[in-house]
This record gives sequence, C-alpha cells and structure tokens, in this order.
Amino acid sequence: METITNKTYDELSVGDSAERKHLVTEQELQLFAVVSGDRNPLHLDEEFAANTPFKGRIAHGMLSGALISAALAMDIPGPGTVYLGQDLSFKRPVHLGDELTIKLTVKEKKERKNIVILDCLITNQDDKAVVTGDATVMAPAESVTIDLPDLPEVTIA
Amino acid sequence: METITNKTYDELSVGDSAERKHLVTEQELQLFAVVSGDRNPLHLDEEFAANTPFKGRIAHGMLSGALISAALAMDIPGPGTVYLGQDLSFKRPVHLGDELTIKLTVKEKKERKNIVILDCLITNQDDKAVVTGDATVMAPAESVTIDLPDLPEVTIA
Repeated sequence: METITNKTYDELSVGDSAERKHLVTEQELQLFAVVSGDRNPLHLDEEFAANTPFKGRIAHGMLSGALISAALAMDIPGPGTVYLGQDLSFKRPVHLGDELTIKLTVKEKKERKNIVILDCLITNQDDKAVVTGDATVMAPAESVTIDLPDLPEVTIA
Repeated sequence: METITNKTYDELSVGDSAERKHLVTEQELQLFAVVSGDRNPLHLDEEFAANTPFKGRIAHGMLSGALISAALAMDIPGPGTVYLGQDLSFKRPVHLGDELTIKLTVKEKKERKNIVILDCLITNQDDKAVVTGDATVMAPAESVTIDLPDLPEVTIA
C-alpha cells in the first residue's frame, strides 16, 4: 500500500515548499458539478461555453480550492493538518485540458498553537498564475505515516 | 428543461440573501477525493476515522467551498457571475450525514466594476456555524435565464 508521511510543525521552516501537477479533465468538470451542485453550463456544455467570452468550457473556480486543500492534506504539512482558513484570489480562468501546477510554500510560523501560513500558487502550462492565496493551518505536532486508501473507480453515464 | 435566472448588479441590494440545503453523503466524500486527489483516510476510511479526535469520517474542508461556489453560480447572483475571490474560515468539522444550510447575503456593493461582496455562512443541523467567509464577485450586468444541463449519472465501484 502507498504511504505518506507528514511534516510536523517543528520540521517545517519558512521557505519549505511542495509542488504537485494536475491535468484538468472532462470527467473532473462533471464530477465537480455533481459534488458541488453547480450545474452552470459554462462548465458542462461545450456549445454554450463556446459562445461566452471564455470561448469554451472552464473549470469551476473552486476546483482550484480543492486542489490546494489536497496539497495541504497530502504534501505539506500532510496528514494530521487541521485546516483553519483559506483565502483565494481567482486571477485567470482554468480551461479544460489545462496542466496546472499547485505550489505551496511555508510563509510564516506563528508561535502559538502550531499555526502555519502557507502561500498557495496555482499556475497553468503558460506559467501564468490562475489562483493565488494563503492557507492557515494547524500543523501536526507528531510525525505520522499513513496508508493511503485507493481512490474509488468512478463511471459517468 | 429547468432554468435559472440571475440577479444583476442593479437588482441586488445590501441584505438580499439566498439559502440552499445540502446533505453530506458517502458518495460525495468519495467523489471529492477523486476530484481533488485528496486520499486522506479521514474522509474515506471509517475505521481509521473512528480512531481520530473526530470519531468518524468528516468531509473535506473545501467541500464547503464548493457548496458556496455553487450557491454563487446558481442562486445569488447566479449565471454570469465572475468569481474574483473567496475567504473561508473553517470553524467546525462537517461530518458524514450532516445537513448543511448554505446562506449567502449581499454585504456590500462597490461602485466600480459591478463588484459585490457576499457574506457566506454554512451552518449544520444544530445551527452551529461550520464555515464563514466572504465572496467577492463581479455581478452580472445583464439579466439572463439559462437552461440547466442535467447532472451526469455517476456510479462508484
């Protein structure tokens, strides 16, 4: 089984960072619509979206939020992180097929309650920022390694 | 076909609000894991989650972000809204089976660029705030009514 290990508050230093890549797929736009309840045709209907200023389907803005939250939970600080807050600034649309890079960097360590602020940056394949923001978390106090459950297989009809 | 109509910048007044309900389901935790890539067992593995301080599975924090984004896109201001920014404060965990109420209220209308700030509040079935925050959007300039595509049918194996 695949495992991941966290970085504890004590192990984190300002400037530490982690990166993950993500390809925006058709399946994902559909699943995000199902999960969120957002049925806007801008994300689901190519013909409708082609006639908007975006000239094609774009991802739900909060998909980027979901990708940041996954990076916090999996990469840095990882398992045991308690998510306290997030601010997000949506800079550019994310299009179907975009290859995103999600980069989190430790910006500040507070002295109380193991609170850490991480700078969050998502860029696209043209190296343009699509989302920026800050995450506020309580970093784990203890080192843990956990087994990762397999993702379920999803079929869309 | 189901349709929705937006509220334009001019139609919105400070204090206007909209509410939607949402039941947190098993399927959703699994789909959110797939969409985000967050495979933390706290959301997927009941046995693991039962042995944490949460005493059972909780939803991914950013699921609440997704619900707010859907309310902006569908309810207020609705279609044509451009999402500029969001801040979120995660106050309490959201558990599997929770019945959430997502309430958005117009807090401020800026004079330039049709910018509107909405107060975002998610409460659970015990009327406790689980997420609070502010959304910043560019409200639509023109009234539109759109057809809503059906959500795809999703099967999880």
